[in-house]
Amino acid sequence: MVERCRNTHPMIRSEGRRLDELRQVKITPRYLSQAEGAVLISLGRTWVICTATVEERVPAFLQDSGQGWVTAEYDMLPRATHSRHPRSANLGKPSSRSQEIQRLIGRSLRAVVDLDALGERTIVLDCDVIQADGGTRTAAITGAFVALCEALAGLQRQEIIATLPVLDQVAAVSVGLANDQILVDLDYQEDSRAEVDANFVVTGRGQLVEVQATGERGPFRPALLLEMLERAQPALQRLRQAQEKALRPWMSLPW
Amino acid sequence: MVERCRNTHPMIRSEGRRLDELRQVKITPRYLSQAEGAVLISLGRTWVICTATVEERVPAFLQDSGQGWVTAEYDMLPRATHSRHPRSANLGKPSSRSQEIQRLIGRSLRAVVDLDALGERTIVLDCDVIQADGGTRTAAITGAFVALCEALAGLQRQEIIATLPVLDQVAAVSVGLANDQILVDLDYQEDSRAEVDANFVVTGRGQLVEVQATGERGPFRPALLLEMLERAQPALQRLRQAQEKALRPWMSLPW
Amino acid sequence: MVERCRNTHPMIRSEGRRLDELRQVKITPRYLSQAEGAVLISLGRTWVICTATVEERVPAFLQDSGQGWVTAEYDMLPRATHSRHPRSANLGKPSSRSQEIQRLIGRSLRAVVDLDALGERTIVLDCDVIQADGGTRTAAITGAFVALCEALAGLQRQEIIATLPVLDQVAAVSVGLANDQILVDLDYQEDSRAEVDANFVVTGRGQLVEVQATGERGPFRPALLLEMLERAQPALQRLRQAQEKALRPWMSLPW
Amino acid sequence: MVERCRNTHPMIRSEGRRLDELRQVKITPRYLSQAEGAVLISLGRTWVICTATVEERVPAFLQDSGQGWVTAEYDMLPRATHSRHPRSANLGKPSSRSQEIQRLIGRSLRAVVDLDALGERTIVLDCDVIQADGGTRTAAITGAFVALCEALAGLQRQEIIATLPVLDQVAAVSVGLANDQILVDLDYQEDSRAEVDANFVVTGRGQLVEVQATGERGPFRPALLLEMLERAQPALQRLRQAQEKALRPWMSLPW
Amino acid sequence: MVERCRNTHPMIRSEGRRLDELRQVKITPRYLSQAEGAVLISLGRTWVICTATVEERVPAFLQDSGQGWVTAEYDMLPRATHSRHPRSANLGKPSSRSQEIQRLIGRSLRAVVDLDALGERTIVLDCDVIQADGGTRTAAITGAFVALCEALAGLQRQEIIATLPVLDQVAAVSVGLANDQILVDLDYQEDSRAEVDANFVVTGRGQLVEVQATGERGPFRPALLLEMLERAQPALQRLRQAQEKALRPWMSLPW
Amino acid sequence: MVERCRNTHPMIRSEGRRLDELRQVKITPRYLSQAEGAVLISLGRTWVICTATVEERVPAFLQDSGQGWVTAEYDMLPRATHSRHPRSANLGKPSSRSQEIQRLIGRSLRAVVDLDALGERTIVLDCDVIQADGGTRTAAITGAFVALCEALAGLQRQEIIATLPVLDQVAAVSVGLANDQILVDLDYQEDSRAEVDANFVVTGRGQLVEVQATGERGPFRPALLLEMLERAQPALQRLRQAQEKALRPWMSLPW
Repeated sequence: MVERCRNTHPMIRSEGRRLDELRQVKITPRYLSQAEGAVLISLGRTWVICTATVEERVPAFLQDSGQGWVTAEYDMLPRATHSRHPRSANLGKPSSRSQEIQRLIGRSLRAVVDLDALGERTIVLDCDVIQADGGTRTAAITGAFVALCEALAGLQRQEIIATLPVLDQVAAVSVGLANDQILVDLDYQEDSRAEVDANFVVTGRGQLVEVQATGERGPFRPALLLEMLERAQPALQRLRQAQEKALRPWMSLPW
Repeated sequence: MVERCRNTHPMIRSEGRRLDELRQVKITPRYLSQAEGAVLISLGRTWVICTATVEERVPAFLQDSGQGWVTAEYDMLPRATHSRHPRSANLGKPSSRSQEIQRLIGRSLRAVVDLDALGERTIVLDCDVIQADGGTRTAAITGAFVALCEALAGLQRQEIIATLPVLDQVAAVSVGLANDQILVDLDYQEDSRAEVDANFVVTGRGQLVEVQATGERGPFRPALLLEMLERAQPALQRLRQAQEKALRPWMSLPW
Repeated sequence: MVERCRNTHPMIRSEGRRLDELRQVKITPRYLSQAEGAVLISLGRTWVICTATVEERVPAFLQDSGQGWVTAEYDMLPRATHSRHPRSANLGKPSSRSQEIQRLIGRSLRAVVDLDALGERTIVLDCDVIQADGGTRTAAITGAFVALCEALAGLQRQEIIATLPVLDQVAAVSVGLANDQILVDLDYQEDSRAEVDANFVVTGRGQLVEVQATGERGPFRPALLLEMLERAQPALQRLRQAQEKALRPWMSLPW
Repeated sequence: MVERCRNTHPMIRSEGRRLDELRQVKITPRYLSQAEGAVLISLGRTWVICTATVEERVPAFLQDSGQGWVTAEYDMLPRATHSRHPRSANLGKPSSRSQEIQRLIGRSLRAVVDLDALGERTIVLDCDVIQADGGTRTAAITGAFVALCEALAGLQRQEIIATLPVLDQVAAVSVGLANDQILVDLDYQEDSRAEVDANFVVTGRGQLVEVQATGERGPFRPALLLEMLERAQPALQRLRQAQEKALRPWMSLPW
Repeated sequence: MVERCRNTHPMIRSEGRRLDELRQVKITPRYLSQAEGAVLISLGRTWVICTATVEERVPAFLQDSGQGWVTAEYDMLPRATHSRHPRSANLGKPSSRSQEIQRLIGRSLRAVVDLDALGERTIVLDCDVIQADGGTRTAAITGAFVALCEALAGLQRQEIIATLPVLDQVAAVSVGLANDQILVDLDYQEDSRAEVDANFVVTGRGQLVEVQATGERGPFRPALLLEMLERAQPALQRLRQAQEKALRPWMSLPW
Repeated sequence: MVERCRNTHPMIRSEGRRLDELRQVKITPRYLSQAEGAVLISLGRTWVICTATVEERVPAFLQDSGQGWVTAEYDMLPRATHSRHPRSANLGKPSSRSQEIQRLIGRSLRAVVDLDALGERTIVLDCDVIQADGGTRTAAITGAFVALCEALAGLQRQEIIATLPVLDQVAAVSVGLANDQILVDLDYQEDSRAEVDANFVVTGRGQLVEVQATGERGPFRPALLLEMLERAQPALQRLRQAQEKALRPWMSLPW
């Protein structure tokens, strides 16, 4: 059990962050001028461009259902990381890690969208990591929510949809256990040393949309799950504020 | 929130299963004669062949580390499912779903293997679904553990390794919320109607190796996580017994 | 010429098989519950799952022809063989060997199906080798015939087709020349030492559907072709009996 | 059985060919100036460029065996055929038909090469169909043999090998049954109407290297195999003469 | 600047060619019998087969525009070059060089075709290099123009189009700077030593369709561009004469 | 000829740009913190991230030559454009357009680098278009030059190389002919209406590195080439100033 490898020296985080303190977050709305939604989210040195595209079609399994869809794609620029990794297009396919992440982003956002009210159209969320320092998938979810709202507000402005089909806010944060301490919003160095690694996708009302927790260096006790979530609350609150700050000038928030 | 769509009619499971009852499980050890480990696990109509291959090499990032590796691949036969799906080889790559699952299987088994004691070799676990009726990933983890033990016991018999480098047993089960009821070990029909869908990978000592929980039709309250895990305990116990029954004739169990 | 390398020591086959003796054959009908046809055929340690899927469409070149189609796909699980081979999905395509074999299976079964009576639908035969010890392609043909009959009998039961559009039985066996002796139904070891290697696909009436013969270690005299076929007759008879035994409980045999 | 559909009108072949008459054959040796061997073979309107490349390496399974290898690749230009087919490079892989054919070409030529005398090097035979009118695989084998001899003679001239490691001549021809008549060297129209289609790869001494026979429209009686081969003898003789005529000016023929 | 590395010894070209002299050019019209247009162009040892296929459809972006399209594909046989290169189909895609070249060929020919007069159909030009000794892309353009005219004349003969929709002739030649001398129509050896390498695609009236010029070993002075073009005029004239000689027996030339 | 379609109304450019006026250019040096060189270049609404990576290896053809290499990769985010295009990784390969552009970027920068002084290492330039409004390839070249200098200056600071192996500055600009007027630095709208489209890659000393000119809607007179280059001089000067402004704070400029 990971709890045994207790380390009496408390973990010191870079730039003096407290254990439950989010890195500096900034969400730039309307980042690009040609997309229906486009956001640059930076979380410390993790930067992700999230765009939202409205497509007037749905996947085959939803045709004639009256229901819409939200899907996501995720990738990293080759030099987003400390050392260069090969370009996905040259590998011939998205990496399995990218595919796993983009499925997570899609599920996370669908959970807060009223797909019936959206109508038979698809919102495609492209999350491209410009710079990676841990927490890219949670930053992508948090940023993609803002891009999604931008795109939906646009549909509303054009009177294509009557109301904003957003049921609640959604944001995500990573939490880890390292040296028997719970850390919130891990950077790359922290993440690579963590014994337990979890990602929580949480709504504005504090409900869970998705939890993924892994014992990277051995199993962990079940109660840790809710302890980690508890410690993540201030960071989640901070992320929701950043989302609202980015959106409020452009639209009225329905949640 | 999913809790709202309460349904006063209790869910009736096929074949009269209780809510927390595992489907009939059978693990056939030494299923094939040419692999170091080979198991057929059936869980109701979900059948998975799990083989273990010993390779005397490790991935590049472990070379000269003295440490071994455990990895997994997962696929489904085209007609494992109710309607035929295209063969992965014709698609040109494993599906993103397969890749996500094989990463999960690999992490789950690495968590109970002492990679240092394994030495610089790789155990490859091939999990091929012959018939699918829900819960293929959890069946694959549970069966792959037995195939892994077979292969490691073989290394021990040949005196390539001194002791069995298995730290604990590991098994996995799915749990869902449907009509406000917690169901354990969902079949395909149940899974497609569940509002919340979770997979728990749990050791013999009751520690968690991996948790994945998704609100398929909206968010869910955090406490549900531990309630689900609690309801899964009898099924997990039953799976561990089936693993032990399959292994005991061939080896002494170290946990 | 291979005839020259005569070896005075007669070849001894494993498990005391006679030169023209088939390995133990077993065909399990209705092996899986979700496919229209599904068979497990075992021929010694060669095991193949053959499923038949009915698709209500035909390839483009048959559209509006009133004629049906039968096609096959073939693959091996990575650890069907003595040492593990890479998964086809990871190679990005079926191996050229697999493609050659699946074309052979398709031709062999089309030869005994009345494609006009089948009507504009396709039967897809998936042949997946679970364990390989020589003769996988001939086992696949022999097993796929049974799966095909299961699926066609189902169409008849549902009154989608009036009569079973099967013109004759078809089965296949390998024959080789090793040490100047003709061997029937070669296992992997025998196959790798054979000087001439042939596969015969033969109907119930003893007509040929397909012959492939290769001088693996030099050319051979033409008359050997018919001598080999002659020696294969008891094995072919045995395979046809196994097919009939598997099918008779479920349907009346039209040939 | 195909024999039943007897047609009293004898088949008339284009350009008044007799039933067993080869189309006009021409083999241009030293067709290209940069390859070790290069031949243009035309058989009526079927044209194939065959080049031979000497590579001073062998596949992994032959390393340090002292033995050489002969392998082949086969493709068609997009507009070799009556209507254009997609370029293989755009499909992302050779077609399964091409792969089947190139395996046949490789086996056919290896059967007449003394791989030990060749030494640890590989001869790669590239067979590219410029124009296709039936019989491309047999033309490729016949032409590739000449290109192979050119390359081997070059090695001998450079004193890299002492003797020409060619055990015998090899040529191939297609034979078909149409309207109950045996036709030799089928063109595309004839091939598409044939009930039985066979390819014979035959050495100078009349031994078989490879036989492939298929009942395209139903099974056929075994004796037909040798009858077809018998009818092919004049055509095979004619092909061997064309090979010798192409080679004799440049080298002494060892067979 | 490349001009500095002046070499007082004049460059001697193989076979005594003058600096501005084209290699021997030969264009064989109606080279293949099954394509709407088919040409073998040889320029010294550079040989390219160019075929033209008429397809009664246009790319999506031209549908219902009334306008036609001309597109090209380019590839090399594996042994067109001095040492063998891998077959594009095995690489899984056309090389980036091939893609760049085929885009150039397409643009070059579209520039002299009246796409409105062509109507909603596509001419596909397949340029396959049989033997390569420098200048394959310019030979492909020059040859493809003839194949294109053959195909268009065929459409006119069938009265599918009223007039030949060709606005002007087009031909292409390479020009290089080596040892401070301008060379026209470089062979492979010359090309690999050139400091500046340019390709000019020029109409019958002397207008430019495309210019590509690269300082392979450093930058060059702008005026060189027009000096190179000036030196290329006799070669371009010679190419146009060869095109006309190939076409005149079959059609009246509209330019 | 394009000159004929003269239009008496002068073209009015968006935002009142003069015909030869560059869009607003901004080069942000040291844009990312983990790459050896990283620049964001914006040219109006065309934004490109250019990173430079130092790899201590060279391509096979340069091994043991003592010489270094500079290469480039280019791609666009899916929503860089007005409508979304599929992600290259999903297409399985870079588009042919991307491949053509990345070859151009590589050639352009190699022309101003002293590859001998660089030593046996490779600089990889990744140019990823964040937002596209015409001129992405010329912006990529101009930005990549700055990223390259950053990386080389870093090698110099670490005393891995003695001097900055940069022979001259290099920048690129597009020029077009529309309505008989020469326009410099075309945006997407202008580019799609241009009759002639050219890209000039030019050194600080005014020498050409690469010219590509295409008659998009018909051929053009040769003299236009130098007229276009002449009109591009102020824009090229402006680009070189922006490069110098970005670099001067961090390094001494060697040209």
